[in-house]
Amino acid sequence: MVVGVWLVGARGSVAVTSVVGALAVRAGLAEPVGMVTEALPLRDAALPSLSDLVFGGHDITAVPLGKKAESLAAAGVLPAGIVASLSAELVALEREVQPLPVGETPWETAGLIAADIARFRERHGLERVVVINVSSTEPAVSDHPAHAELAVLERALQSGEQVLPGSALAAYAAFRAGCAFVDFTPSTGARLPALEELAAREGLPYAGRDGKTGETLVKSVLAPMFAMRNLRVRSWSGTNLLGGGDGANLVDPAANAAKAGSKQRVLKETLGYQPQGHSLIEYVDDIGDFKTAWDLITFTGFLGVGMRMEFSWHGCDSALAAPLVLDLARLVAAAHAAGRSGPLTELAFFFKDPIGEVPHGLADQWALLSRFARELPDA
Amino acid sequence: MVVGVWLVGARGSVAVTSVVGALAVRAGLAEPVGMVTEALPLRDAALPSLSDLVFGGHDITAVPLGKKAESLAAAGVLPAGIVASLSAELVALEREVQPLPVGETPWETAGLIAADIARFRERHGLERVVVINVSSTEPAVSDHPAHAELAVLERALQSGEQVLPGSALAAYAAFRAGCAFVDFTPSTGARLPALEELAAREGLPYAGRDGKTGETLVKSVLAPMFAMRNLRVRSWSGTNLLGGGDGANLVDPAANAAKAGSKQRVLKETLGYQPQGHSLIEYVDDIGDFKTAWDLITFTGFLGVGMRMEFSWHGCDSALAAPLVLDLARLVAAAHAAGRSGPLTELAFFFKDPIGEVPHGLADQWALLSRFARELPDA
Amino acid sequence: MVVGVWLVGARGSVAVTSVVGALAVRAGLAEPVGMVTEALPLRDAALPSLSDLVFGGHDITAVPLGKKAESLAAAGVLPAGIVASLSAELVALEREVQPLPVGETPWETAGLIAADIARFRERHGLERVVVINVSSTEPAVSDHPAHAELAVLERALQSGEQVLPGSALAAYAAFRAGCAFVDFTPSTGARLPALEELAAREGLPYAGRDGKTGETLVKSVLAPMFAMRNLRVRSWSGTNLLGGGDGANLVDPAANAAKAGSKQRVLKETLGYQPQGHSLIEYVDDIGDFKTAWDLITFTGFLGVGMRMEFSWHGCDSALAAPLVLDLARLVAAAHAAGRSGPLTELAFFFKDPIGEVPHGLADQWALLSRFARELPDA
Amino acid sequence: MVVGVWLVGARGSVAVTSVVGALAVRAGLAEPVGMVTEALPLRDAALPSLSDLVFGGHDITAVPLGKKAESLAAAGVLPAGIVASLSAELVALEREVQPLPVGETPWETAGLIAADIARFRERHGLERVVVINVSSTEPAVSDHPAHAELAVLERALQSGEQVLPGSALAAYAAFRAGCAFVDFTPSTGARLPALEELAAREGLPYAGRDGKTGETLVKSVLAPMFAMRNLRVRSWSGTNLLGGGDGANLVDPAANAAKAGSKQRVLKETLGYQPQGHSLIEYVDDIGDFKTAWDLITFTGFLGVGMRMEFSWHGCDSALAAPLVLDLARLVAAAHAAGRSGPLTELAFFFKDPIGEVPHGLADQWALLSRFARELPDA
Ligand SMILES: NC(=O)c1ccc[n+]([C@@H]2O[C@H](COP(=O)([O-])OP(=O)(O)OC[C@H]3O[C@@H](n4cnc5c(N)ncnc54)[C@H](O)[C@@H]3O)[C@@H](O)[C@H]2O)c1
Ligand SMILES: NC(=O)c1ccc[n+]([C@@H]2O[C@H](COP(=O)([O-])OP(=O)(O)OC[C@H]3O[C@@H](n4cnc5c(N)ncnc54)[C@H](O)[C@@H]3O)[C@@H](O)[C@H]2O)c1
Ligand SMILES: NC(=O)c1ccc[n+]([C@@H]2O[C@H](COP(=O)([O-])OP(=O)(O)OC[C@H]3O[C@@H](n4cnc5c(N)ncnc54)[C@H](O)[C@@H]3O)[C@@H](O)[C@H]2O)c1
Ligand SMILES: NC(=O)c1ccc[n+]([C@@H]2O[C@H](COP(=O)([O-])OP(=O)(O)OC[C@H]3O[C@@H](n4cnc5c(N)ncnc54)[C@H](O)[C@@H]3O)[C@@H](O)[C@H]2O)c1
Ligand code: NA
Ligand code: NA
Repeated sequence: MVVGVWLVGARGSVAVTSVVGALAVRAGLAEPVGMVTEALPLRDAALPSLSDLVFGGHDITAVPLGKKAESLAAAGVLPAGIVASLSAELVALEREVQPLPVGETPWETAGLIAADIARFRERHGLERVVVINVSSTEPAVSDHPAHAELAVLERALQSGEQVLPGSALAAYAAFRAGCAFVDFTPSTGARLPALEELAAREGLPYAGRDGKTGETLVKSVLAPMFAMRNLRVRSWSGTNLLGGGDGANLVDPAANAAKAGSKQRVLKETLGYQPQGHSLIEYVDDIGDFKTAWDLITFTGFLGVGMRMEFSWHGCDSALAAPLVLDLARLVAAAHAAGRSGPLTELAFFFKDPIGEVPHGLADQWALLSRFARELPDA
Repeated sequence: MVVGVWLVGARGSVAVTSVVGALAVRAGLAEPVGMVTEALPLRDAALPSLSDLVFGGHDITAVPLGKKAESLAAAGVLPAGIVASLSAELVALEREVQPLPVGETPWETAGLIAADIARFRERHGLERVVVINVSSTEPAVSDHPAHAELAVLERALQSGEQVLPGSALAAYAAFRAGCAFVDFTPSTGARLPALEELAAREGLPYAGRDGKTGETLVKSVLAPMFAMRNLRVRSWSGTNLLGGGDGANLVDPAANAAKAGSKQRVLKETLGYQPQGHSLIEYVDDIGDFKTAWDLITFTGFLGVGMRMEFSWHGCDSALAAPLVLDLARLVAAAHAAGRSGPLTELAFFFKDPIGEVPHGLADQWALLSRFARELPDA
Repeated sequence: MVVGVWLVGARGSVAVTSVVGALAVRAGLAEPVGMVTEALPLRDAALPSLSDLVFGGHDITAVPLGKKAESLAAAGVLPAGIVASLSAELVALEREVQPLPVGETPWETAGLIAADIARFRERHGLERVVVINVSSTEPAVSDHPAHAELAVLERALQSGEQVLPGSALAAYAAFRAGCAFVDFTPSTGARLPALEELAAREGLPYAGRDGKTGETLVKSVLAPMFAMRNLRVRSWSGTNLLGGGDGANLVDPAANAAKAGSKQRVLKETLGYQPQGHSLIEYVDDIGDFKTAWDLITFTGFLGVGMRMEFSWHGCDSALAAPLVLDLARLVAAAHAAGRSGPLTELAFFFKDPIGEVPHGLADQWALLSRFARELPDA
Repeated sequence: MVVGVWLVGARGSVAVTSVVGALAVRAGLAEPVGMVTEALPLRDAALPSLSDLVFGGHDITAVPLGKKAESLAAAGVLPAGIVASLSAELVALEREVQPLPVGETPWETAGLIAADIARFRERHGLERVVVINVSSTEPAVSDHPAHAELAVLERALQSGEQVLPGSALAAYAAFRAGCAFVDFTPSTGARLPALEELAAREGLPYAGRDGKTGETLVKSVLAPMFAMRNLRVRSWSGTNLLGGGDGANLVDPAANAAKAGSKQRVLKETLGYQPQGHSLIEYVDDIGDFKTAWDLITFTGFLGVGMRMEFSWHGCDSALAAPLVLDLARLVAAAHAAGRSGPLTELAFFFKDPIGEVPHGLADQWALLSRFARELPDA
């Protein structure tokens, strides 16, 4: 089952790390460390293999993939040797990564996006394509009546109204092109009633939102620990220092708020109450892709005794995200092939802000994911 | 169902915190924070209630319970107000805490211990008694042929040979008195074939070993997180700084080794391999009961990128242990009442070094415990 | 030499901790830990003794001193036993702590403040009074032409214009009453040309600004370490989590900015350049007076190798501030007695944002302070 | 003034990083970050310049310098580009690095060592040579009567007795060859009365001991901070996790003890008392040269309130040590030229365990060093 992976933001750090990683593992240059679908029990599931993936995408910048890969190597995200070995393949891939098209109206833009994806599918004789949004986080978007109903939305798009942010237009175009969609960012994406209506009508699955790679991942195991032990968490305060493209973008307070919001939700969901404290995001250019998060947790034990825990997480964001992007491409393609449509709540394991009424503790999400993978029909 | 709780080491920090806590919660002076059996889903299980527990025990020191409680209050482990309110009850309890008896032979000592427990049972008309070892950690013990078979063991005890450390003699006496046994310490306790034989013969359940209250608790959720995400843990090094009676005792290298040994086991069991690094225990008198553990974890992500996490845990050891002691008393009493005998592997959740072939990840242990509690028959 | 200490904000945490501490040390109930003037070499300087200090002050709240002391004891800032022992003395002190007076015009208010101080001086036959501002941090104040010249300022005050924030009006009144002034907060205080003019004219000394008790104290030794070793600090990011009255006040972004601003200055001054990064202040009610600061420092060593350091500081703010307030009272009184007027730059050691062209490294400030103390004339 | 730098352990990490760094800075490939003699005020002192240094040395391994440099580059200690640019120069340097000679008796060995150094001096027409010990840390050595007096020592050496460890024999040979000596390790080196006698007789200066690059450096500014503020440090516990050659060597408990011993001394010397706690060193191969140290400090403030600080230091050991080795070569050569002999106590700034009655706080050591440098006569 050859599967297309269409990356929105294909020249960004996460996208290029994903592509270089897939090529490297395929070529035997690296181990698939960090890929959930390459370890037991998911390794035994009926999934397209890594070598079945074909990459393409859109971006608004024209920085060559090879250049981006080299700068990621200089920053310590990618091994320089691997980037050098793959330089020819990266040049060849240039042809599949196109500038984001712009039409007269959003309607027309969506048509152009869908057409690019369709041509990609035909060019490679692909059975199906998974569209994955890994572009820059957008500012939070305000409600609009056109979000509520597909018919109203389409009329607005035709009339030239800018009612959808880029991520949602990408989801709309993906569904129109008959593709599954994955929201790896905290942006709007497919999460509007009108788009859910479209996905349902077209029988297409989607997953999201916001890849869970660092501080929130740790929270999703520590918060359940406090809950299981009936210890009362009083405050949980986090600071995330990060540089890189994603960090620079988050200097915008609106984008920052969108991201910080979803970072405390796991606490409410797993503890059953919201402790005091906030999760701050702070841009520090020098820190680059090697984000540092620090969290302080104060809690009360037996007879009211106060205690504390703190942790620092020094993770390379793109290297944590990329293997999950590949996992998601495989899992969502298999779900699509199996006839699933609508939200894939079983993939909550991968997301900070998962869709639907799902568990927020990592272990429960893992159980859900494992069962989902086990039950996938053989292709 | 009135249940006896016989504490070996009844004048120690954990024991006194457990007793004061039970009395305080019962009297409405404190919330049962930290007690697993007081939160959902275990709150709904068929367990003896907190007010059904009656306390007694042995110790080798004669420090009055009230004195010990006051010194725990001065150290910030117990609230001074609560200790003051309960002073009369603590004085009344003195009568139930006896000096550890010593006979001519270990056989005779065991008989005296069993007799003390039996009298405690009769005095209070108790249906059953759970014996819980919360005495000082013993040095690791070397193997002896008498450990392998009950008949051989009993002959050795009669002949005056010192083949059992105190904790194992306590377990032996508990079984002879028809009581369930809980090993809250890393000492030998019931974990010898000869004692398992005795428990089986008498139809008695037992649980252990070494209450999981701090660094290992955190490990038991973080290590599975790395495993689920297929991230390769390269090293995991821990330092535990602690004072208090338990800390002073661990200055003895042999006792220290017994304890440190079981602290890395969770890694091997949940990761599937043993990363580099050790878990050190260091006595710092000034730190008292407010242990500080610091762990550094180095791990590899996608394409070999090196990352790190560190955490510090500032927990009050006795306040973390005491509610678990009360949970265990209730759960083991219910298991005994339900006719269970042999090792209670479903209680792995509570222990650093659990008995039997059990999961070592906290979430799996939690699932096991929840099912166990749900399936307990109504008394 | 009996000396008056007039506290602006006399019912706040810092003030009450200072007063209780002075009484306790005097009564032999506690050691003067944290007081710089009680250790060598300053212990040998010609300073008024602790028992020579007489306390009074203004506040806008009426919470009794004893009540405040009890709530500080409940929070672990003051030992409950000491508070209990001193309750009669705290009741007696009530008479010296007056509500902040309010006149028709600022001019009149200043007169009423000065009159209260003068009466305090007479009542106790004091040779001199040091006025110390330990009231809530004010929002940063915008410039006004009246700040530049005393004559213009006084006309504005008379005409009823609100050109001075409370802290500056307190300084103005202090100078009018012939008193030295200490700015323990980041508020404006004496730092306006018109007030400096007044201090000079009256021959009065003043010191400030913003007591250096936690994160900045640590920065003032770590930043010089990097400088001395010629290591290049690339980023220095700090997060300060705090509750308590001061924390609640800092939720106001304007007050927060005033405080955060001065926290990075030490880096520029000691390193010679401003590294990336900010110092955040975040209110977490549960944390109370036991502030936690966490800093991440990234730096470059030989041949460009990147390194990092992080620290967490868990300090009790009022307990760190109070002994410095007592030190300052003694030192400033001695300077006044010795005929010093204008800014006491030698006291930079005590402040986050010291007045004048002074060193910002702690060791250099210490050398300055030691010489200053040594050269004080015998009274 | 062309100066020879003779490195004992010339193929080790510190030595090779020093040499590569000197060549790189000289060639304009890197900034002299981390070199104290390249920043103000020492930059203005009368010192031999970096380009005046000529390198040679002894080692017991034959790993080529270029190979070692490449492996340091792979480990992230040296930039790969710089190592590549300097490969020819490293090959040329091979000729200057000789196998450690071994004679029939220690006396003869010392003669051979001295002869190698003398030939190096002649080959390059050097006015003087500074011998710097950067070889593996030795186990602590037990006292011997021959250590006390030069005549006795020389008789013992002649008779074939192994009374000196390698580091001390190197110092002896250095002095016999008329060279100044620097002890960058915690080994014995020149610190025996008999060797001090020899240095004095020959009019030669020496400096040491044990380069101060990480945890102890931080201690040397933090401990004085607590002292200056009259805060009572109750415990100070450190854990040092390190890999690399130096780490592997420290697995030997004897070598470990030698190193750990000197790490707490700074506390006693700067605080005036020894707080509780130890400094542990733990080998973790995976961590390599990027040592992590974690320290927990508990302290008491005003009225006995308990507080804490912790820090983690993630430093690249060789990159921190190498610039200091170059600084020491320049400073000791200048001191020798200026006619200084005996212990150079003014260089305490560089050492964990400095010689003589010197201050242990970094700022005081810095003042001493600055004056020393300022007073060096122009060559
Ligand atoms: N790295 C992680 O751990 C992680 C985790 C969760 C979510 N994310 C999200 O993934 C996204 C990508 O992160 P990154 O680090 O690769 O950022 P990046 O800045 O390196 O890449 C983003 C790319 O998107 C492109 N882009 C911007 N607007 C676009 C548009 N309208 N259409 C198409 N392309 C567009 C940019 O040109 C850029 O190449 C961000 O939204 C981030 O929040 C990342
Ligand atoms: N506190 C925790 O978080 C925790 C967690 C796991 C295990 N434990 C274990 O619990 C035990 C108790 O810890 P603690 O902090 O209360 O220690 P403690 O030193 O305060 O108390 C131990 C008590 O046992 C008594 N004792 C010693 N030998 C005895 C014997 N042979 N028979 C009867 N009593 C004896 C001592 O006199 C003392 O009163 C230790 O073994 C400890 O390792 C504690
Ligand atoms: N605690 C520290 O470590 C530290 C360090 C540096 C600076 N400071 C500063 O010291 C000040 C006091 O801190 P705190 O923790 O005691 O705060 P707090 O809130 O406990 O006390 C402030 C007191 O000032 C009173 N007040 C407010 N406005 C007033 C006015 N106009 N005139 C007179 N009184 C007034 C309040 O009623 C309150 O009693 C703050 O400005 C804080 O920023 C504290
Ligand atoms: N790196 C730092 O931050 C630092 C700080 C203080 C002290 N030191 C000390 O510097 C020394 C070197 O550290 P490193 O990391 O370079 O270690 P390393 O193991 O990389 O190098 C030591 C070298 O010494 C050689 N050697 C061993 N015995 C010898 C002998 N008798 N004569 C000559 N050469 C011999 C070894 O073959 C090796 O090449 C150690 O003693 C270490 O404790 C290092
Ligand atoms: Na920390
Ligand atoms: Na840390």
